[in-house]
Amino acid sequence: MSSIIGKNITLSVFGESHGEAIGALIDGLPAGIPVNKDNIYAQMERRAPGRDKSATPRKEKDMPKIISGVLDGFTTGMPLCAMIENGDTRSADYSYLKDTPRPSHADYPASVKYGEHFDIRGSGHFSGRLTAPIVFAGAICREILAKKGITVGGHILSIGNVEDTPFDKTDVNNDLIKELSLSSFGVIDSDKEAQMRDLIESARLDGDSIGGQIEIAVTGLPVGIGEPMARGVESVISSALFSVPAVKGVEFGAGFDIARMRGSEANDRYINANGKIATATNNNGGVLGGITTGMPLIVKVAVKPTPSISKEQKTLNVKTMTEDSLVIKGRHDPCIVPRAVSVVEGAVCLALCDLMKEGGLL
Amino acid sequence: MSSIIGKNITLSVFGESHGEAIGALIDGLPAGIPVNKDNIYAQMERRAPGRDKSATPRKEKDMPKIISGVLDGFTTGMPLCAMIENGDTRSADYSYLKDTPRPSHADYPASVKYGEHFDIRGSGHFSGRLTAPIVFAGAICREILAKKGITVGGHILSIGNVEDTPFDKTDVNNDLIKELSLSSFGVIDSDKEAQMRDLIESARLDGDSIGGQIEIAVTGLPVGIGEPMARGVESVISSALFSVPAVKGVEFGAGFDIARMRGSEANDRYINANGKIATATNNNGGVLGGITTGMPLIVKVAVKPTPSISKEQKTLNVKTMTEDSLVIKGRHDPCIVPRAVSVVEGAVCLALCDLMKEGGLL
Amino acid sequence: MSSIIGKNITLSVFGESHGEAIGALIDGLPAGIPVNKDNIYAQMERRAPGRDKSATPRKEKDMPKIISGVLDGFTTGMPLCAMIENGDTRSADYSYLKDTPRPSHADYPASVKYGEHFDIRGSGHFSGRLTAPIVFAGAICREILAKKGITVGGHILSIGNVEDTPFDKTDVNNDLIKELSLSSFGVIDSDKEAQMRDLIESARLDGDSIGGQIEIAVTGLPVGIGEPMARGVESVISSALFSVPAVKGVEFGAGFDIARMRGSEANDRYINANGKIATATNNNGGVLGGITTGMPLIVKVAVKPTPSISKEQKTLNVKTMTEDSLVIKGRHDPCIVPRAVSVVEGAVCLALCDLMKEGGLL
Amino acid sequence: MSSIIGKNITLSVFGESHGEAIGALIDGLPAGIPVNKDNIYAQMERRAPGRDKSATPRKEKDMPKIISGVLDGFTTGMPLCAMIENGDTRSADYSYLKDTPRPSHADYPASVKYGEHFDIRGSGHFSGRLTAPIVFAGAICREILAKKGITVGGHILSIGNVEDTPFDKTDVNNDLIKELSLSSFGVIDSDKEAQMRDLIESARLDGDSIGGQIEIAVTGLPVGIGEPMARGVESVISSALFSVPAVKGVEFGAGFDIARMRGSEANDRYINANGKIATATNNNGGVLGGITTGMPLIVKVAVKPTPSISKEQKTLNVKTMTEDSLVIKGRHDPCIVPRAVSVVEGAVCLALCDLMKEGGLL
Repeated sequence: MSSIIGKNITLSVFGESHGEAIGALIDGLPAGIPVNKDNIYAQMERRAPGRDKSATPRKEKDMPKIISGVLDGFTTGMPLCAMIENGDTRSADYSYLKDTPRPSHADYPASVKYGEHFDIRGSGHFSGRLTAPIVFAGAICREILAKKGITVGGHILSIGNVEDTPFDKTDVNNDLIKELSLSSFGVIDSDKEAQMRDLIESARLDGDSIGGQIEIAVTGLPVGIGEPMARGVESVISSALFSVPAVKGVEFGAGFDIARMRGSEANDRYINANGKIATATNNNGGVLGGITTGMPLIVKVAVKPTPSISKEQKTLNVKTMTEDSLVIKGRHDPCIVPRAVSVVEGAVCLALCDLMKEGGLL
Repeated sequence: MSSIIGKNITLSVFGESHGEAIGALIDGLPAGIPVNKDNIYAQMERRAPGRDKSATPRKEKDMPKIISGVLDGFTTGMPLCAMIENGDTRSADYSYLKDTPRPSHADYPASVKYGEHFDIRGSGHFSGRLTAPIVFAGAICREILAKKGITVGGHILSIGNVEDTPFDKTDVNNDLIKELSLSSFGVIDSDKEAQMRDLIESARLDGDSIGGQIEIAVTGLPVGIGEPMARGVESVISSALFSVPAVKGVEFGAGFDIARMRGSEANDRYINANGKIATATNNNGGVLGGITTGMPLIVKVAVKPTPSISKEQKTLNVKTMTEDSLVIKGRHDPCIVPRAVSVVEGAVCLALCDLMKEGGLL
Repeated sequence: MSSIIGKNITLSVFGESHGEAIGALIDGLPAGIPVNKDNIYAQMERRAPGRDKSATPRKEKDMPKIISGVLDGFTTGMPLCAMIENGDTRSADYSYLKDTPRPSHADYPASVKYGEHFDIRGSGHFSGRLTAPIVFAGAICREILAKKGITVGGHILSIGNVEDTPFDKTDVNNDLIKELSLSSFGVIDSDKEAQMRDLIESARLDGDSIGGQIEIAVTGLPVGIGEPMARGVESVISSALFSVPAVKGVEFGAGFDIARMRGSEANDRYINANGKIATATNNNGGVLGGITTGMPLIVKVAVKPTPSISKEQKTLNVKTMTEDSLVIKGRHDPCIVPRAVSVVEGAVCLALCDLMKEGGLL
Repeated sequence: MSSIIGKNITLSVFGESHGEAIGALIDGLPAGIPVNKDNIYAQMERRAPGRDKSATPRKEKDMPKIISGVLDGFTTGMPLCAMIENGDTRSADYSYLKDTPRPSHADYPASVKYGEHFDIRGSGHFSGRLTAPIVFAGAICREILAKKGITVGGHILSIGNVEDTPFDKTDVNNDLIKELSLSSFGVIDSDKEAQMRDLIESARLDGDSIGGQIEIAVTGLPVGIGEPMARGVESVISSALFSVPAVKGVEFGAGFDIARMRGSEANDRYINANGKIATATNNNGGVLGGITTGMPLIVKVAVKPTPSISKEQKTLNVKTMTEDSLVIKGRHDPCIVPRAVSVVEGAVCLALCDLMKEGGLL
């Protein structure tokens, strides 16, 4: 287990789904960054379960409590620890999951790796709940980026086969990103929201779940962020993103589509854009050789459907080695993609700040 | 610049395209790993330019010279340094690239980042030539993996729109992988080779280039490799892969396709496969929660078309801020995908060994 | 600020003297290590202020609360977070310390480094209180070491000019170390305790403080711990020890005395000690080339006198640049050396576990 | 084995005493640092064997050959690799050292750790020769420091019982340091040189060796270098210094002497020194809480006598477990302290640059 994301600004994630609390410990932050509780809460809300379409924000409950590193509303430069208590944990019996592991969860490999002492209750440290600290750290890092004129925002690019309009890679609207960065169901083409919701509802009614894609854009980046070869922008961001268990693919710019292009088509020609150096296309997603080009950074992520579905599934009893059936208890999101947007944004914010510090740019 | 890939077994890449030499420094290797020159050469050959279809292997020339860390054919446990001298460097004038940067190369962002002292000759440290050390390190790591019964092999999944048959994710043929791991133009469906070559030749005749995809499979993995959340298998492998500048996308298992699935379809059901725990499908590509499941690891990579094309391109003179045209001199591969297979395999080998050492599995 | 000690088993220290809480986040622990609250408490007591000679242990109050990583009395392999709440913080005004920094405290350089947002209350993150997390982590690591037959214990080697008998470097009594590892005023020659206490009391009566030395021995070490050159035993232990602000010197074996020896005197001759390979002397303190030799590890530390003394001191008002006088408020230990023994032991335990994990020895 | 010193500017040391070459790979250097061969050679000369009092400098031979990272006399920001070929290696038989390990060398623990494939020839990677790359890296880092007005120099503080005058910790003469930083037998009190040389000659005539101490001063440091707790100045410097196998003790400022002081004596009172903030004493050696104070940094190191002595020694045959005698062949320095000054300085230069980069100060 190695839950420390980053090198110079690090996020250490701790806690288990049904333990005392979960939390974030951020080390290496500069002093003097404003820590605005409303801004943090706005981000936490986007990821929180059951908040979307909810009239009653339960503000007090899940707000991270800051333990250290902040004084009078600003970071002090010391490690910033924040905790979210686990109010609702019930002492259900989860031990059956060690015998009949849930398909596509970490139950089985983690039980083999950590042995009899593995805390499997509510998925333990592997629970999706453990992405909340990433959102929290992202909210702090957003303030660092904002001071530099950098904005990070994303949208639901697809749910199942319903696809939203992608970003215009060469001309990302800054107001749009800001709006998306506060949205709980962010789409560019507002007509798609209803179709996506229908698809999610349909999955829910079937006791099933559904996957999707998230697309993030970052604007205002200077040229020169990234420490290639090993700590290039794509390496550092992808590493942070794949620490989210539901992520199964990461691509930059044209991504996998670039594999079908010819060079003459893929190459991003330099142009004079009102006195600034820009490119006519942005198939490289704002990164060349691991270094930002000044064009918008575009990253896309594939999110798998929640493996926790309520319909009965077949699995193996790994003790008896016989087929068994499994019904996963509790309420589970039929689609985590809308909530995951803030997690993906948070990971991108964290990775960028880490690299900017490494490069002496903070 | 941070060219050290890995944590416990590290590969430091050094050198520039037109400098004295390029090289690999591998730290943290166990003692007693056989270092077989033929095996290393077989891998280096796969990446070497102009080797495919060539009757005269220039064996002596590009063979890495081992400087340290090996004695009597075995690693000693000390840092292993190997160098490849740059025989053919000509003192051409590359300074024009700082004024008229090549589209989709690192010329422009690297010049901004490193300033007037940036070594741009032949792309310097950003040259594709700098992937040779990854192949070398991969060849050493293959021996470590082989001792544990683990095999890594890949194929050209596509060139442009010509697609090879993908791996059967639940039943990867071990003989096939071994064969592919030595091939210089590896495909599963041998009929596709000719079509791919035609497409490449057609791009070449047009003074253009073309992209493609590479798919890698790893067999023989034990359950339990990976140190989540931050050092899960996907994080560590993707980070290594994106340190190759041409890579623009990385996905595991079903990858982006999983975003269109329902949970009931995507979930990999556990089964008893002749007394062993396996899964009926392998949409997660052998990794759950960042930990190997014992199923084949499947990773796919998007490789962009070589930005160096011989046909004239438009670019910007960044000094005068006026449009300019550029003709890139020298001979360049119309498609780097076949040669890149060994690089991608090498990065995967290195990442796995690094994680196995971290987990106490070596 | 970079408060993460270690590489593969890491201790992240967080909190400020007058903040909500202080704490330890330990990442990379193996699963299945017993977490015995009594053992932890026994260690915490040794460092706690006002405990020595105290009839009423305030057990409940300062016991670290474990937040994550432990289930049913064993580590789970997940990050282990523990917190100690700051019950007694009073909102005294400490801002004067930024103008008239206390001599030999971090007040001045930290104020320059972190600027106006530096949390100077009670020394903030630089307070000696922040060594409690090291003791806690040490208590957990002791259990790992105990499983391997390794014991770590230390004593007050000197207070001022009163010197205790040093360890017999070639024949450290195991029972003695165990006893010392639980002692709150550990000395080998019990006659020295009274003299040391007198010296401390005399300093206290003068409103002054006094320094001392600590000597640690580790027994039961296998041959082969340490990852030279950069991660040798001495590098890793000294780095951890110097993270304690009061430590100004670290030496191994004969330490600085070896500088006066000839080779023929200093060299530790190998002998057959009842069938085991040993050395006749142990001037190298159990480490050669950064690797343990199997002999007892002997490390000595110089601890400076507490800079917080109650007698009036001269200092500079750094705003007005004029001389000023300073009276430090509050109660301060006239000698921190007895309490620091557990901190030094804890740092050694942590460093050894980190290296053993790195070497695949856990 | 982990031979990578540092975090953001790293020195990877490679090579074995009797292999092809030894070398340094420095990653993370800024671009634009002048690489002056004369300056590098001046430093290499100080460490080189047989140079002191030698009329014929063998300049060409041991000059490191720069392989990468430098163009037209300046660093490019890419990894800088340099090699020193091992011209004089003779294929003597060293295998007897595995059976009868040399006292106080790494022979025995390294043979246990790395097994039969350990390269013991001429001590392999554990040879004192492997400190040359530290001197080389130090020479590069000196240029970085010089640009910031920082100077690093040291002297032989003692050989056996002959002691040189220590630095005046509050008023280090800058010209003196510069002179020392180029000296091959640096002392402050020139009368001591002859006495020291006599002592060394006397040891040599006895077939013995002798130890000593080195004291380093750094001037021109700004306030605020250091990333406590874990990456404070003392942690990072001591870690680098202890990677030199002969170093057995490291202390800052008053070091172990501070353990005998009272607080009122040890505390470094702030004063107005001609309009600058300074301290009246410098018992803390220019570091408080792991952060530089702007006062001279003072660090002292204990160097053990060379374990390689020509007089016959007793040891154990570890195969037969019987006593044996050993005569170490070859010529060995009776005292490595004069040559080690440049190594210690180099390690300090490297550690400071690493920390300055981490703190955004480069």
